[in-house]
Amino acid sequence: MRDVVIIGVGMTRFGKFLERSLQDLGREAVWNALEDAGVPPEDIQIAYVANSLAYQLTEVKGTVGQHVLANAGFFRIPVINVENACSSGSTALRGACLEVASGNYDVALALGVEKLFCDDTAKSALAMASGTPYAKFGFMFPALYSMELKKWMEKYSVTQLHFAKVAAKNSRNGSLNPNAQFRKALSVEEILNSRVIAYPLTLYMCSTMGDGAAAAIVCTRDRARRYTSKPLVHVAACELVSGTVNLPNQPHVNLEANAAGLAYQKAGIGPEDINVAEVHDGMAPAEMWIYEKLGLCKEGEAARMVDEGMTEITGPIPVNPSGGLAAKGHPVGATGLAQVAEIVWQLRGEAGERQVKNPRIGLTENAGGWVIDDNAACAVTILKR
Amino acid sequence: MRDVVIIGVGMTRFGKFLERSLQDLGREAVWNALEDAGVPPEDIQIAYVANSLAYQLTEVKGTVGQHVLANAGFFRIPVINVENACSSGSTALRGACLEVASGNYDVALALGVEKLFCDDTAKSALAMASGTPYAKFGFMFPALYSMELKKWMEKYSVTQLHFAKVAAKNSRNGSLNPNAQFRKALSVEEILNSRVIAYPLTLYMCSTMGDGAAAAIVCTRDRARRYTSKPLVHVAACELVSGTVNLPNQPHVNLEANAAGLAYQKAGIGPEDINVAEVHDGMAPAEMWIYEKLGLCKEGEAARMVDEGMTEITGPIPVNPSGGLAAKGHPVGATGLAQVAEIVWQLRGEAGERQVKNPRIGLTENAGGWVIDDNAACAVTILKR
Repeated sequence: MRDVVIIGVGMTRFGKFLERSLQDLGREAVWNALEDAGVPPEDIQIAYVANSLAYQLTEVKGTVGQHVLANAGFFRIPVINVENACSSGSTALRGACLEVASGNYDVALALGVEKLFCDDTAKSALAMASGTPYAKFGFMFPALYSMELKKWMEKYSVTQLHFAKVAAKNSRNGSLNPNAQFRKALSVEEILNSRVIAYPLTLYMCSTMGDGAAAAIVCTRDRARRYTSKPLVHVAACELVSGTVNLPNQPHVNLEANAAGLAYQKAGIGPEDINVAEVHDGMAPAEMWIYEKLGLCKEGEAARMVDEGMTEITGPIPVNPSGGLAAKGHPVGATGLAQVAEIVWQLRGEAGERQVKNPRIGLTENAGGWVIDDNAACAVTILKR
Repeated sequence: MRDVVIIGVGMTRFGKFLERSLQDLGREAVWNALEDAGVPPEDIQIAYVANSLAYQLTEVKGTVGQHVLANAGFFRIPVINVENACSSGSTALRGACLEVASGNYDVALALGVEKLFCDDTAKSALAMASGTPYAKFGFMFPALYSMELKKWMEKYSVTQLHFAKVAAKNSRNGSLNPNAQFRKALSVEEILNSRVIAYPLTLYMCSTMGDGAAAAIVCTRDRARRYTSKPLVHVAACELVSGTVNLPNQPHVNLEANAAGLAYQKAGIGPEDINVAEVHDGMAPAEMWIYEKLGLCKEGEAARMVDEGMTEITGPIPVNPSGGLAAKGHPVGATGLAQVAEIVWQLRGEAGERQVKNPRIGLTENAGGWVIDDNAACAVTILKR
């Protein structure tokens, strides 16, 4: 397999954009990535496009990628539309990388695009919960996270204050990110005092709906220098794991740890080599258990990580410098590629006020689906400068 | 890239199965393919799953493949859900082949599954037309085909009788196929006298809704003999083309011809080498123009092909021995893989009463999307015994 590098990334700001269409958002992300890469559009040979909910919330009911890319000026390339719930964006990146690594094509585009807000917010909220038939029994995402977090709090010395600290860190990071949906730095007190959604989760700990798009352009290392003089970012691993998490009479499966294990092996590194990470904090406190699942700390040590500020932008292993899902926003199909864009900017030293000090290796963790159901997925990507 | 062979295929019968779920249909196709291949389920390493309309017509609103495969007993493999309208099934096969060809995995599953019938047939019909915003102006599939066919009839000496002859051939073939939705052999007269849907299309020329699933298992040639002593079917090409067909001030793009051209080139053959073909006759008469687009005859000669019975099962280049979309049925996401299953059975000499005489090379053509819109796709696959 050939070495694959990311030569350009782009995204829209995430947010509530009632006046913008799926096509409009996708076009902006694609053209930002093209400009960043210095690639003329006619050199893009194939595209993988991630989307999860357009079917339910927009007029585009199929071949989402073709609709969006035609609007962006791409009419004649093969388009592969992929879906994997919240991990759809990483699934698109994985496909684009495989096309290039295998020698099928030399330059590939991965796009994630999502339009969740529509005129009827209740409809949008129901669409987001529609991935599982259990939703009608009240098993919406905050309830699920709440149950898991409570079990975890009992097992280790983790408190609601820790969760508020993580959320405060991420809102601070988000306030430094021009692409973030929420740019107000919240204090621990504001977070703890916000409305309880499902204890221990308060309003400001939860990710919300968002509209947005993010894109990455990958090509062979040999070809990259035709286009850009920026630092090349090598895709050292992009590993996808799917499946059921909990089966009766079967050992519990840890999808995040499995995906991370495969990725570390493929990249030939360990968690101690990671300098910056973007992780899937669907609810901000979940970031803490992801520290443990990725091996950034030992089991039971996540609370200490937070207390010591280890994952602040200024800490030894910054996590979610972009603000994460709760502050940056979470337009489902776009999220994985927005994580990748953030790590690329960090590795290239282009992250502005939220720049981590000289990172060489970054990681994204992008999970999707419903852990109580049959349909979870998780992708871990490792990027090297 | 490594040689990829199909070692097993399976499908459900296509039809109206109100009592069967998406999961139920998918499981049957997967297990039929496993049995055909002689592969133990634990050897399947990755799955590509095609579906187009479950979001609109079933309770399964996302990660369709994980839901279906968990029901079939697969809980722990990476699943990539792909969508490309009516060409989704071939898109899944293409992905599975790339995983194996590239060396990423050794044994991969491609599954197409679709559940179109629900308690409200009008809802199903509207879902099938929802791929384009133009549907509300009356541009449903029969209207689109009708307009194209009328232009074509004017240009060449093609008559409604030719279209009826093609539909009669396919219904005859379908009557010999135990998996076909419609198993009554219709006469040319019955077809011409059936209700006019959109002139020149009559009822019995049109494909309808269907429920069903089809699957294929691919692996490396080296590994295949561990599992099966049946003839191996080599995937000589599986080429996907997408994009807009008609742009103002641009030459008309012929997606089918482009995909076929790429496939012939990759397989190192020409149309004269094809011994049997399954093509995407969304409306039976369209089969005729696909003869020309695939190069099975010269432009303007399709009518003569029909008059001389060239594409009958007993002719020199049999087309749609399975009955094609109008007789076998067209559960959108499953269609491409059902075409592949038919060609595999034909190449292995297992097609029973509809067996073509000793074919060595077969082709499938699987098109999707809306030609007047921005979102068409076409895949051509070439299989060799």
